[in-house]
Amino acid sequence: MSYNLQQLAEHIGARLIGDAELMISAAAQLDDAGAGDICFVASAKYVASLKSTSASAVILREDVLGDSPVASLVVENPRAAYAKVVALLYPEHKPAPGVHTTAVIDPSASISSLSYIGPNVVIEEGVVIEDGVRIDAGCFVGRNSRIGLNTHLYSNVTVYHNCVIGEYCIMHSASVIGSDGFGFEFDQGEWLKIPQVGGVVIGNAVEIGACSVVDRGALQDTVIGNGVKLDNHVQIAHNVSVGEHTLMSRGVGIAGSTKIGKNCLFAGMTGVRDHVEIADNVIVTAMSMVSKSLTKAGSYSSNTPIDETRVWRKNSARFRQLDEMAKRIKQLEKLIKDKE
Amino acid sequence: MSYNLQQLAEHIGARLIGDAELMISAAAQLDDAGAGDICFVASAKYVASLKSTSASAVILREDVLGDSPVASLVVENPRAAYAKVVALLYPEHKPAPGVHTTAVIDPSASISSLSYIGPNVVIEEGVVIEDGVRIDAGCFVGRNSRIGLNTHLYSNVTVYHNCVIGEYCIMHSASVIGSDGFGFEFDQGEWLKIPQVGGVVIGNAVEIGACSVVDRGALQDTVIGNGVKLDNHVQIAHNVSVGEHTLMSRGVGIAGSTKIGKNCLFAGMTGVRDHVEIADNVIVTAMSMVSKSLTKAGSYSSNTPIDETRVWRKNSARFRQLDEMAKRIKQLEKLIKDKE
Amino acid sequence: MSYNLQQLAEHIGARLIGDAELMISAAAQLDDAGAGDICFVASAKYVASLKSTSASAVILREDVLGDSPVASLVVENPRAAYAKVVALLYPEHKPAPGVHTTAVIDPSASISSLSYIGPNVVIEEGVVIEDGVRIDAGCFVGRNSRIGLNTHLYSNVTVYHNCVIGEYCIMHSASVIGSDGFGFEFDQGEWLKIPQVGGVVIGNAVEIGACSVVDRGALQDTVIGNGVKLDNHVQIAHNVSVGEHTLMSRGVGIAGSTKIGKNCLFAGMTGVRDHVEIADNVIVTAMSMVSKSLTKAGSYSSNTPIDETRVWRKNSARFRQLDEMAKRIKQLEKLIKDKE
Repeated sequence: MSYNLQQLAEHIGARLIGDAELMISAAAQLDDAGAGDICFVASAKYVASLKSTSASAVILREDVLGDSPVASLVVENPRAAYAKVVALLYPEHKPAPGVHTTAVIDPSASISSLSYIGPNVVIEEGVVIEDGVRIDAGCFVGRNSRIGLNTHLYSNVTVYHNCVIGEYCIMHSASVIGSDGFGFEFDQGEWLKIPQVGGVVIGNAVEIGACSVVDRGALQDTVIGNGVKLDNHVQIAHNVSVGEHTLMSRGVGIAGSTKIGKNCLFAGMTGVRDHVEIADNVIVTAMSMVSKSLTKAGSYSSNTPIDETRVWRKNSARFRQLDEMAKRIKQLEKLIKDKE
Repeated sequence: MSYNLQQLAEHIGARLIGDAELMISAAAQLDDAGAGDICFVASAKYVASLKSTSASAVILREDVLGDSPVASLVVENPRAAYAKVVALLYPEHKPAPGVHTTAVIDPSASISSLSYIGPNVVIEEGVVIEDGVRIDAGCFVGRNSRIGLNTHLYSNVTVYHNCVIGEYCIMHSASVIGSDGFGFEFDQGEWLKIPQVGGVVIGNAVEIGACSVVDRGALQDTVIGNGVKLDNHVQIAHNVSVGEHTLMSRGVGIAGSTKIGKNCLFAGMTGVRDHVEIADNVIVTAMSMVSKSLTKAGSYSSNTPIDETRVWRKNSARFRQLDEMAKRIKQLEKLIKDKE
Repeated sequence: MSYNLQQLAEHIGARLIGDAELMISAAAQLDDAGAGDICFVASAKYVASLKSTSASAVILREDVLGDSPVASLVVENPRAAYAKVVALLYPEHKPAPGVHTTAVIDPSASISSLSYIGPNVVIEEGVVIEDGVRIDAGCFVGRNSRIGLNTHLYSNVTVYHNCVIGEYCIMHSASVIGSDGFGFEFDQGEWLKIPQVGGVVIGNAVEIGACSVVDRGALQDTVIGNGVKLDNHVQIAHNVSVGEHTLMSRGVGIAGSTKIGKNCLFAGMTGVRDHVEIADNVIVTAMSMVSKSLTKAGSYSSNTPIDETRVWRKNSARFRQLDEMAKRIKQLEKLIKDKE
């Protein structure tokens, strides 16, 4: 799709400096852009690239406007404005509403005539599919689950029974919602399964990445708040609740019954233990292990720095002597003090 | 389903204190329970909640019976008894036996008439499906594999060729059994694939979580013992053997040819290197890296504690000086000793 | 399949010592082998097993030929030669070309008559499937994607739209190619999605493990070079490029826009942060966190060693005092120096 700068400026509420009739047909990066392209400048850090860009227009903040050699759209948050422009220039492919002939739909399911149900989708009894929902090929939606307004399940997503997914959500391929929580009790020499009879309740505007898993609750529901974004390979265990607008990068794992606050950021491959509470606005850096509740907003970390293996090996071996080293320091301090 | 207390007491072998005719229709937690609900008390730690519960009945041990304000079922292991009661109150949904018309079944496959084969399931030549098996929508079972008595594959499970899955197993969605082990040899500038021609043999009463993977052996089989429970995102590499009743939490990875003992517990996101042996009854705490054989039962850990990022950053930087610090301590000790 | 030693020797370019007519029908390990089996000896470390083997023949290097009690095939790289022999003895099962009647193929897709399209496969508009491609049951290939010569998608693989997969690739089950990169901008109290309009370009001879994910680029493509091998549960984020012949073990995660060199090895569960560069020939050991660019070839590590939990707990607690310990050592050194 192509738009002129005037149309783009109105779409993002920008002040337009330059030719209002200029046609824009693509987004690009400052260094790769050419005629017809629009770029954004996140901060003054990129002024050099801005000055030499061959783009037709840039989205930027007031503070770098003076450095722009081309037509400019001035906004408060260039990245957000850029996201809106990209959405306009590259409209999402939307299949026409309807149920593919190969879909297997239980007669008791309620399927909006304004939804799209793709090939080989299986929908069980009592399911409700609301308006504007898109369920791509090979997805499964188990009995009595509900998929809210305008939610999109990419191919091969599995939603178990008795799960509720809100409005405007996106679920990527091979993600699984509602699998059994991991609950067993050792009894007479073997693990007895504790039936997982709770459900999953997912709010609105939630995105769940490929191969991510949200387990159903043991008795009560696992709950994901509005606006939560989960990357790929993320795990939310049974009875967890995740507060609104919290973001988890790839591979994060939250263990059972933990309560996660709002507006948190969990960087990649971080783990949070079971039965703890994480306050609002907590940031956890990559590959950290959260082994206790974090009751105050702030940034938290664990792990050790990357090093050459031969150097790391020596330091790592000393880690096993740390307690002894601390005691020897104390002993030295005492010896010196005694001498004084 | 509803049962009276007498029926529940008999089902779990409990001593009943209270009204045998009292009807129970749901399980609940002590603090949320109401009329018709049954709860359990795991230990004396929960006595306060017990004393104030509004449940109709509780499952408990003798030692807290005196604190129960309501009808009580006295057992040795309340959590195990509770699991059995939940299974009774919330019977699993079981589809009627039969093969869905959209399933694609090779004529040479042997499918028990007492099994359920769901929509769009694909079963290749030579497969054997035993009595009571349930294979939900979209699963694939490759040639010559066998699924044992009463095993349940949730939707979108993939079982490759020449794999054997035992009886009473549960496989969750998007799990994969029998994918190629990761075996390559660098030869003439590129990685030559070592064909993975072994299989997978999974025992009885094994549960495998969503998005978990058990690779086939290179030459011999990868073996999972009876009663093993794997959470989501677990990986078992080629030629690994896992002993009976071992439990692995979310994200655990076991590298190739490693032998894992019986009754082990691997907490979340733990990794075990290749070609090592782990004894029976080993516990490994979360996010640990097992870089060698563990030949004695016991609990093992690695990793560093979570801290505020600004504090962690300083300590983490010092990790790179640990060997030097150790040497400086030794030097100080020598200096002081020399002075004496 | 069975072959005589002469045929095997010719296939792998080996010097044959022994009976050229001897029939070989299986591969085995030195200690388990019997009549009709062939084994390989990787190095002199296995001479004891070699001396006592009951195999019919062994593949070995010149240096251990003297220790072989049986017919021998002498080569430079026994493991590579063995891989080629296994491929010969255990030919891959290949379905006949053709499109299964249950596959759903858009009329605008170009499907080679020499390809195999299995049951319930869904192929959208504009897709190109080249000669020799094998797409197993339940796979999805989105619009305008291309699958190159002789590539094999195992069951339940998902390829999103506008992705290019090269020749002779292997994708294992539940892997996902082309899911959205994880890109959001916080705007007016919520996360605004940055549309991910780039694609994925995968080279030739790439293998991608089960439940692995390669995200599509935000604007440009995510690129995987020729000969790259990814194990299970691997994640390649948006805009990453991975150089030729790099190998990533299970669970590795590469964050957005990072550039990975050629011939690198990433051991299991290693994470690499976003926007960094990793040189060619870098090795990263297991469970390491790469938090910066690595500009020189070599081996790198982070993490701490496994220990008994009770010992680890003491040392781990001291980690939080490391900076203070370092300062106390310095203070002690100063005190002693002052006294001198």
